[in-house]
Amino acid sequence: MPSISHKGALMPESPIRKLVPYAENAKKNGTKVYHLNIGQPDIKTPQVALDAVKNNTIEVLSYARSEGSEEYRTKLSAYYQKNNIQVSPNNIIATTGGSEALLFTIGSITDPGDEIIIPEPFYANYNGFSTASGVKVVPVISKIEDNFALPKIEDLEKLISPKTKAILICNPGNPTGYLYSKEEIEKLKKIVLKHNLFLIADEVYREFAYDGHTHHSVMSEVGLEEHAIMIDSVSKRYSMCGARIGCIVSKNTEFINTAIKFAQARLSPPTYALLASEAALETPQSYFDDVIEEYVERRNTLISELEKIDGVKVANPKGAFYCVAELPVNDTDDFAQWILEKFNHQNETVMVAPASGFYSTAGEGKNQVRIAYVLNKKDLIRCVEILKIALEQYPN
Amino acid sequence: MPSISHKGALMPESPIRKLVPYAENAKKNGTKVYHLNIGQPDIKTPQVALDAVKNNTIEVLSYARSEGSEEYRTKLSAYYQKNNIQVSPNNIIATTGGSEALLFTIGSITDPGDEIIIPEPFYANYNGFSTASGVKVVPVISKIEDNFALPKIEDLEKLISPKTKAILICNPGNPTGYLYSKEEIEKLKKIVLKHNLFLIADEVYREFAYDGHTHHSVMSEVGLEEHAIMIDSVSKRYSMCGARIGCIVSKNTEFINTAIKFAQARLSPPTYALLASEAALETPQSYFDDVIEEYVERRNTLISELEKIDGVKVANPKGAFYCVAELPVNDTDDFAQWILEKFNHQNETVMVAPASGFYSTAGEGKNQVRIAYVLNKKDLIRCVEILKIALEQYPN
Ligand SMILES: Cc1ncc(COP(=O)(O)O)c(C=O)c1O
Ligand SMILES: Cc1ncc(COP(=O)(O)O)c(C=O)c1O
Repeated sequence: MPSISHKGALMPESPIRKLVPYAENAKKNGTKVYHLNIGQPDIKTPQVALDAVKNNTIEVLSYARSEGSEEYRTKLSAYYQKNNIQVSPNNIIATTGGSEALLFTIGSITDPGDEIIIPEPFYANYNGFSTASGVKVVPVISKIEDNFALPKIEDLEKLISPKTKAILICNPGNPTGYLYSKEEIEKLKKIVLKHNLFLIADEVYREFAYDGHTHHSVMSEVGLEEHAIMIDSVSKRYSMCGARIGCIVSKNTEFINTAIKFAQARLSPPTYALLASEAALETPQSYFDDVIEEYVERRNTLISELEKIDGVKVANPKGAFYCVAELPVNDTDDFAQWILEKFNHQNETVMVAPASGFYSTAGEGKNQVRIAYVLNKKDLIRCVEILKIALEQYPN
Repeated sequence: MPSISHKGALMPESPIRKLVPYAENAKKNGTKVYHLNIGQPDIKTPQVALDAVKNNTIEVLSYARSEGSEEYRTKLSAYYQKNNIQVSPNNIIATTGGSEALLFTIGSITDPGDEIIIPEPFYANYNGFSTASGVKVVPVISKIEDNFALPKIEDLEKLISPKTKAILICNPGNPTGYLYSKEEIEKLKKIVLKHNLFLIADEVYREFAYDGHTHHSVMSEVGLEEHAIMIDSVSKRYSMCGARIGCIVSKNTEFINTAIKFAQARLSPPTYALLASEAALETPQSYFDDVIEEYVERRNTLISELEKIDGVKVANPKGAFYCVAELPVNDTDDFAQWILEKFNHQNETVMVAPASGFYSTAGEGKNQVRIAYVLNKKDLIRCVEILKIALEQYPN
């Protein structure tokens, strides 16, 4: 039998993949499972986007332009300009989700053996995209005690080697919900300029900034033009994860011309989804206001309920729709399985994501979970109640 | 300025990319440009697929399952079974186009420095996907004189090294239109069994087999189960290139489990396109009969018209919707540019794909072009007329 590649063997499994059969089993046995484990919001997609697809008049479903149409990129750049990000259509490549934007970016700036420094905990699939490209993720730990702020810049600088090609941040963060301050972005700017690195900012949660805080994009930093690469997506902004449209944004022409070659090889982003994404740009501000209000309430509910549980420590997220909580258990991989496999309360249970999958340092995050507040308040309250009872019964 | 990767620098441009500005210029100057250069059919997408999207009732456009829903893969396996390909839903991973299927396949079975043997001329983007994975394409030349049949198996076997991981064929071929016989598939089977290699067959044009010939899938070969990987796509079958749904099919469980990890990292194929693709499976046989009849007439028209031109040699394609023609010029890259830049006949001209981009052996195919017969007969006749006049006027 011919064998698979080393790279293929190294590809990580999704951190919750192991739990899926237990969740399915629980459901089969009549237990309701609340999903706090994935970043799939329950929020309605803007009507204007749904309608654009329902009312389409396509007869021959053709390839779109590899980098997205001039028209879409023009409208998208206007959206960014309204958000203090001064870019032109030529700075943008439409991709199949933020996922593909990450893949093309890593491919364009790294060769096998190169390194990317990422504050951890981080979005688990950074591991997958890096492994697929033969790139080593070099983590720098951010701490729940510090609310997951940027680690000390000296700690980060110590990790830079001749192989380092980029620093990658997620802002606001998945799984931490942390929103970087302008000062933190400027610290990163200094260091990437000094060491001639790229600064990749995954800003797919840009619009989800709470409590009056503003989001600071790497694209708005003067002097960072040749270094800054922004990853974006319609998935979370418009609750249209299934569209699969994202983009790469950068003013570095050589980088953009390189990434376009990756885009050409795969021909085209999905045409229906481009229709939806272009129309979504017409979404009224009231939609966002409502969504933000909803998430803030959910977050407040979730955090205050969690804090009532003995031994639970939780960071206060200022953005995105995740929080990392420390539980009074030794191994949340085991706990997350147990609560699906061996536990239920009045025939209900919850699925959470063990945080170990968001760290690449072995042993880190073993007592943490990520909770996505993508359910309504009533359900969230019930979820925390279930967690509390489960923690009391869990044979630690 | 931070620099791009070696890999990124090596990524090939699309073979027609250089010509695009000349085509755009010609259009700006009022010249009509007939596009024979791309595999984008003008055929209508099946109504049942278009309707499924128009009538969708999605309110929250969610991620689909990474490998495609159980339901879609079940229906798809039923489609294959009707086509003499005995596979189960677990043998299938839905991908974002055949393009992504190729990328995941190469990632799952090769590491940087490994080799894949491919008969050339071949689909140009095999170069791109291989480069993106750091893999070396080892070409074995098939000849227009032989109608692009499988090269002598001894020539192919000589190229096998310890680094060889797979042989990749395209059946029917793009750009050649060549349809492999059962005997040829069996020769390949012998050699991959002997050397323990994967046999990847890109069968995205499977339904386009003409003149009573049958298509022989690698998936139907007894004894090849652990070696055969089929690449497929809805793009050409249903003229829905813009959907971006394809799939990987294999009975090798270890390979499929590896490819699924690549699929998980990018989360989901496009949800609207999955709706369209699932519905497309209900397309009546009459649709295919009509399409095949249309393509056969187009092919016959194109070939007979081309053969009337002095000095033109053309292979007779038995499948797909391309043909490779040898022109009485030294450099079709130059000719293809000239016909757009310096020539028109009654304000009309044509765009063809120079064949050099479909070879990886330097200097091969310099006097060949690929012509896609994706236009109606009347236009094809006019296109060949334009080509004929242009060849008379071209200052070779
Ligand atoms: C931080 C982050 N980046 C990128 C993505 C990829 O999203 P998509 O490919 O749907 O745009 C996600 C999805 O959850 C994410 O959380
Ligand atoms: C031989 C071959 N394979 C794969 C593809 C990729 O097609 P898609 O990604 O649209 O499925 C094409 C497209 O032209 C092709 O010609």
